[in-house]
Amino acid sequence: MFRKRTSCVRLFSTSVRIQANRAIVYSQNGQPADVLRAVTVPGLGAPPPQTANVRFALSPINPADVNVIEGVYPSKPRRTSFPGARGDAFVGGNEGLAEVTDVGEGVRGLAPGDWVVMKASQVGTWRSAANVREDQLLKVPRLDGLSEVNAATMAVNPPTAYCLLSHFVALERGAWVVQNGANGAVGQAVIQLARNAGVKTLNFVRSRDDIDALRRELEDLGATHVVTYDELGDKKSIKAKVNGWTGGQDIRLGLNCVGGESTMAMAGLLGSDAHLVTYGAMAKRPVPIPASFYIFKNLTSHGFWLSRWYEGNDEGRIKLVEELARTMALGKFKEPKHEILTIEKETSDEHASGLIRGIFQRMASGGFKKKVILKVESSD
Amino acid sequence: MFRKRTSCVRLFSTSVRIQANRAIVYSQNGQPADVLRAVTVPGLGAPPPQTANVRFALSPINPADVNVIEGVYPSKPRRTSFPGARGDAFVGGNEGLAEVTDVGEGVRGLAPGDWVVMKASQVGTWRSAANVREDQLLKVPRLDGLSEVNAATMAVNPPTAYCLLSHFVALERGAWVVQNGANGAVGQAVIQLARNAGVKTLNFVRSRDDIDALRRELEDLGATHVVTYDELGDKKSIKAKVNGWTGGQDIRLGLNCVGGESTMAMAGLLGSDAHLVTYGAMAKRPVPIPASFYIFKNLTSHGFWLSRWYEGNDEGRIKLVEELARTMALGKFKEPKHEILTIEKETSDEHASGLIRGIFQRMASGGFKKKVILKVESSD
Repeated sequence: MFRKRTSCVRLFSTSVRIQANRAIVYSQNGQPADVLRAVTVPGLGAPPPQTANVRFALSPINPADVNVIEGVYPSKPRRTSFPGARGDAFVGGNEGLAEVTDVGEGVRGLAPGDWVVMKASQVGTWRSAANVREDQLLKVPRLDGLSEVNAATMAVNPPTAYCLLSHFVALERGAWVVQNGANGAVGQAVIQLARNAGVKTLNFVRSRDDIDALRRELEDLGATHVVTYDELGDKKSIKAKVNGWTGGQDIRLGLNCVGGESTMAMAGLLGSDAHLVTYGAMAKRPVPIPASFYIFKNLTSHGFWLSRWYEGNDEGRIKLVEELARTMALGKFKEPKHEILTIEKETSDEHASGLIRGIFQRMASGGFKKKVILKVESSD
Repeated sequence: MFRKRTSCVRLFSTSVRIQANRAIVYSQNGQPADVLRAVTVPGLGAPPPQTANVRFALSPINPADVNVIEGVYPSKPRRTSFPGARGDAFVGGNEGLAEVTDVGEGVRGLAPGDWVVMKASQVGTWRSAANVREDQLLKVPRLDGLSEVNAATMAVNPPTAYCLLSHFVALERGAWVVQNGANGAVGQAVIQLARNAGVKTLNFVRSRDDIDALRRELEDLGATHVVTYDELGDKKSIKAKVNGWTGGQDIRLGLNCVGGESTMAMAGLLGSDAHLVTYGAMAKRPVPIPASFYIFKNLTSHGFWLSRWYEGNDEGRIKLVEELARTMALGKFKEPKHEILTIEKETSDEHASGLIRGIFQRMASGGFKKKVILKVESSD
């Protein structure tokens, strides 16, 4: 689908195209279901020097995107003005796979047909097309076997998992990692990257009706053990169980995206000289750690934020994208469970706005148990 | 006093002395006021090879000593058997200044008259004399101007303060440190060592009736500002106040010996890339830190335990003792506020036991607001 459309666009790439694009925008911070709307905006002209025109193939909705729209996230988007559209606005979305459709003068590293992801943060990916500076784009190798979905979701969660596993503790084959929120997108990436490296994972998830199905799913990804937070209630029993699994080996890396009491209990499973890394706060509660863990067990507690690591680290980032692309192309990293929601080109802006708000309403009430990916068709 | 007594002992150092010593011991873990007793034990014979006989001058009671007696501290003492006394027991006390009275064959680094502190932990310092292996002792330079009290209290709190200030953040002159429990022994040491290095301290203490006197006292030691935990209740106001003091400079080191909500609020005063170091838990509550501090402000949370640093680090330790001794001898590090409680040689064991238990009862109810130092006289 994507490739076909592309070749069609390339036919016109040297002429000024009269077409319309669509963007999902907001003018003020607030709940996405209240403030987002779809707008039709004029098509792109010929790209200015040092820029490329890109067409978005797939644009994921990540949890942090909601915080950005609410105005509570440290990374702030810039307002975009759309010639001919009323006023200016913020375009939603931070992650996305796009294809280069045209390049301006002086662009050296990109050509029409290339796949790119966003190097700059908060470019606004929930739209059909955009003109972007070359230095804000990162080329993704178009390898056989690398799916669009994998490429579209490779810039946030898998690199986070990669950094969590590699920046804090030198993990040898056979080492153990414990994590909570294990069925989240980062958690699933951790499971797979750890398995690829011969590292074992102890994975905590919330108890639920279909816990056996979830356990099987995570084990299929490579999870060594999947346990519910409930089991953390009985410290002695869970410690004995974990000791049996690890053969008494100290667990030296804990990954936390939850917070609250269960995180404290999980930290209690760590051995001496361990590192606990917080990268999320699903429970919206602080991370309470007993002083004795710090003092006597020499625990170190860190945070990880991908945007900080990305800053000024283009080289590491390019290497990582290439490594992830290869891993994915080899079938060693599954696509996240996902649902692609298409805003079709025939749809009116009013109807599209309703669709988008409906998506965020459903998301806010936990209605999706998978990654939601937008496909905003252009009306050209 | 101490020097006189010493020279007297040295007159007899080549003969086998018939004398009695006293030790504060316990046979089982429990509350100090319940389990401690004073026992008279035979005098020391000639020291075996590689050992020294030492006479304790001053032996502080530190908070951790209580935890050791309760059996809840990770460092465990070994039972000591006293020839002639009934059974064996643990001798209380971890810190103390002693004078070498006699040395066995093969002792190269010590001579009678030398001052020593304990290199090994949990040697049992609450006694009048002991025979100790040379490698468990650390010589303290007997500098003019170095008081007995300073030397007796130099092995635990000042080195902790020194490590807290030097192991986690490179503090330039003019940098800021924030700490709670600032009127504790470590807190006071932090204030003085920071002042000596041109580093500014923001010191939190509990509010109390004599808060003005305490503020003056800490300012006399070199505290830049002294603030009560109450002020942490209004985040905006305290942030504005602190910003005014620091001129907007980020505070990159926080020292915590309390825990609980006020520690979370104090951590909120730290800037980006800061380090929070926990070395105590006076509030007996976990350290709750919001995930956002870790993720977006790149906070790192550590623990510090002096015993771990001491392990296998004799060289660093010797250097530190020498540096502290010089600093103290120059009058740049005041004696802690203290009370010396003497167990006199004429006192019966029964009476002495009652005294000791009384001290710990008073201590448990917060009756001392200063360092308590034991002086256990021998009945020779």
